[in-house]
Amino acid sequence: MLTTTLAAIRPLDEEAMASARALHGRLTKPAGSLGALEELSVRLAGLAGSCPPPLPESAAVAVFAGDHGVHAQGVTPWPQEVTAQMVGNFLAGGAVVNAFARQMGASVTVVDVGVAGVLPELDHRDLVAAKVRPGTRDLSQQPALTRDEARTAVEVGIQVARDLVDAGADLLLTGDMGIANTTPAAALIAAFTGAAPAAVTGRGTGVDDPTYTRKVAVVRAALDRHTPDPTDPLGVLAAVGGLEHAALTGFILGAAARQRPVLLDGVIGVSAALAAAAFAPDAVGAMVAGHRSVEPGASLGLARLGLEPLIDLGLRLGEGTGALLAYPVVASAVRVLHEVATFDSAGVSEK
Amino acid sequence: MLTTTLAAIRPLDEEAMASARALHGRLTKPAGSLGALEELSVRLAGLAGSCPPPLPESAAVAVFAGDHGVHAQGVTPWPQEVTAQMVGNFLAGGAVVNAFARQMGASVTVVDVGVAGVLPELDHRDLVAAKVRPGTRDLSQQPALTRDEARTAVEVGIQVARDLVDAGADLLLTGDMGIANTTPAAALIAAFTGAAPAAVTGRGTGVDDPTYTRKVAVVRAALDRHTPDPTDPLGVLAAVGGLEHAALTGFILGAAARQRPVLLDGVIGVSAALAAAAFAPDAVGAMVAGHRSVEPGASLGLARLGLEPLIDLGLRLGEGTGALLAYPVVASAVRVLHEVATFDSAGVSEK
Repeated sequence: MLTTTLAAIRPLDEEAMASARALHGRLTKPAGSLGALEELSVRLAGLAGSCPPPLPESAAVAVFAGDHGVHAQGVTPWPQEVTAQMVGNFLAGGAVVNAFARQMGASVTVVDVGVAGVLPELDHRDLVAAKVRPGTRDLSQQPALTRDEARTAVEVGIQVARDLVDAGADLLLTGDMGIANTTPAAALIAAFTGAAPAAVTGRGTGVDDPTYTRKVAVVRAALDRHTPDPTDPLGVLAAVGGLEHAALTGFILGAAARQRPVLLDGVIGVSAALAAAAFAPDAVGAMVAGHRSVEPGASLGLARLGLEPLIDLGLRLGEGTGALLAYPVVASAVRVLHEVATFDSAGVSEK
Repeated sequence: MLTTTLAAIRPLDEEAMASARALHGRLTKPAGSLGALEELSVRLAGLAGSCPPPLPESAAVAVFAGDHGVHAQGVTPWPQEVTAQMVGNFLAGGAVVNAFARQMGASVTVVDVGVAGVLPELDHRDLVAAKVRPGTRDLSQQPALTRDEARTAVEVGIQVARDLVDAGADLLLTGDMGIANTTPAAALIAAFTGAAPAAVTGRGTGVDDPTYTRKVAVVRAALDRHTPDPTDPLGVLAAVGGLEHAALTGFILGAAARQRPVLLDGVIGVSAALAAAAFAPDAVGAMVAGHRSVEPGASLGLARLGLEPLIDLGLRLGEGTGALLAYPVVASAVRVLHEVATFDSAGVSEK
């Protein structure tokens, strides 16, 4: 499934992009006056291979949830049980991602790709039960996953993307839940960008100074132990990743293979995007950076991917919240190409 | 009408703000993880005097349109007739503000407060015909408006805000159309902030170097001629303002008097916000900066008002487009206070 997905990912369509650029020049607005939205709409035309590209009317957030053996190293003040508790909160509609999704008219699907323990909500209609294993191993002591486990998690993400697209979604949004998951995200970003552990490691949901120092040391130790090879993304994900990171990698690749834009949330989504780009450089064409997380690794990763975020409001929550805030911006950018009159058609004089 | 409006503007309610801050600490998210959205929701609680504040479900853009005698000085490459043509485009639903408003589910009302000539769409249901005069006088040669005209225009804006609120709007958005209107906006911002003409004058919809030099000189000449007194906002608006700037000042004051948030668009809205703050410093409590326009005066004005914009995407279109992009962000911030579960109610462990 991974192989066929990678084979289906194509470069942006230059002809559709040229059409979109030309159309922008005829619409009733000064040239360039929509700033970053103009190039965004051009890229989405290139992704769809048509101008205008389809208007994103059905957006779907997938929140991939997993636990982390590295939690044992004391990298976060939150107890591991919060991952499963927050899955319950998502399914009950009580989390911030649910509130934002209701505001935006988006759906929320929760994917148990690796929560420790058995969830009580296994038959909930918004839950995909696809646990690869109950949490990763401690990446500071051993590989977090076997290569087979990492591949299986990637394929869970591909399948979720396919299923959501088949159900009508035309815009996918990355979401995540996993206590301690900014630690593997930092390790992944360091592995793919070559940046130093201290440069990619942030304070996640709010750690104190001693915990932060420990977290950087854990990331450094993991990289020293595994020396992950950035040209082998499956190996990197297995060595220092997480189940939700691997699944999100597949989710992004699945979106790109189906020519659907995928809005990246924060540092977890960005770490997965780097892995996806290592699998298939053309997958970057499907990525839209939703927001600039406070986590330093997120900005580093986005810079490496050549992506500028749409929203920058100091969020550091995850769940898909930052991506959701950007959804109306993306839809508005596309809507311009569908609905705005030209100077000719509106009888408006040009300068 | 201006006097009663100013008398109705109150400071933010500290008790409601304290309640909102305390509620944020109990919701199922790490403290502070929603960044700027948390303080935004706290301010809106203070404005409404209740926690949670009402969820903004009916947003209304008012696009105030006017022409400018200073157009004769060659400060823009666009012909003056484009103002009236674009009003036609708005009423036909073909402009970017219409496309964005459809995306966001907002209404668009166009107010002719000073378009040169007679509009052919005078009986259109989305048009408010409230022309004070057909364009301003050339502010580089004489006062743009008499004090009476300026006051009448301010009161047009107050009335539009009242009517929209009475019709159910719970969030107002500033919009504008007026070829050459960034020139009076620059002069207003210089008058209210004391900044130099070159620091507040931008390239508007895209002027070349000679036009830009001329535009700065025009702003400087106007300020030298009129030496507007920033403690007399009506005098400033009359000397160097525009009819849409004056009406937007009233619109903002009208929103504040009715305790409704008003989302500022770009440099025109910001210049009016400075005038509104000069009339009533507490009006700033009702203001939310929608976006950071490319125009340098907008950033200067927002800094003076102590407002950080929600969106920063290089837009320089006006019409209300930047404010519209921010509307879902504002609604999402408020929705958190309404809908997100507490740690207690969701059974989620704290750190």
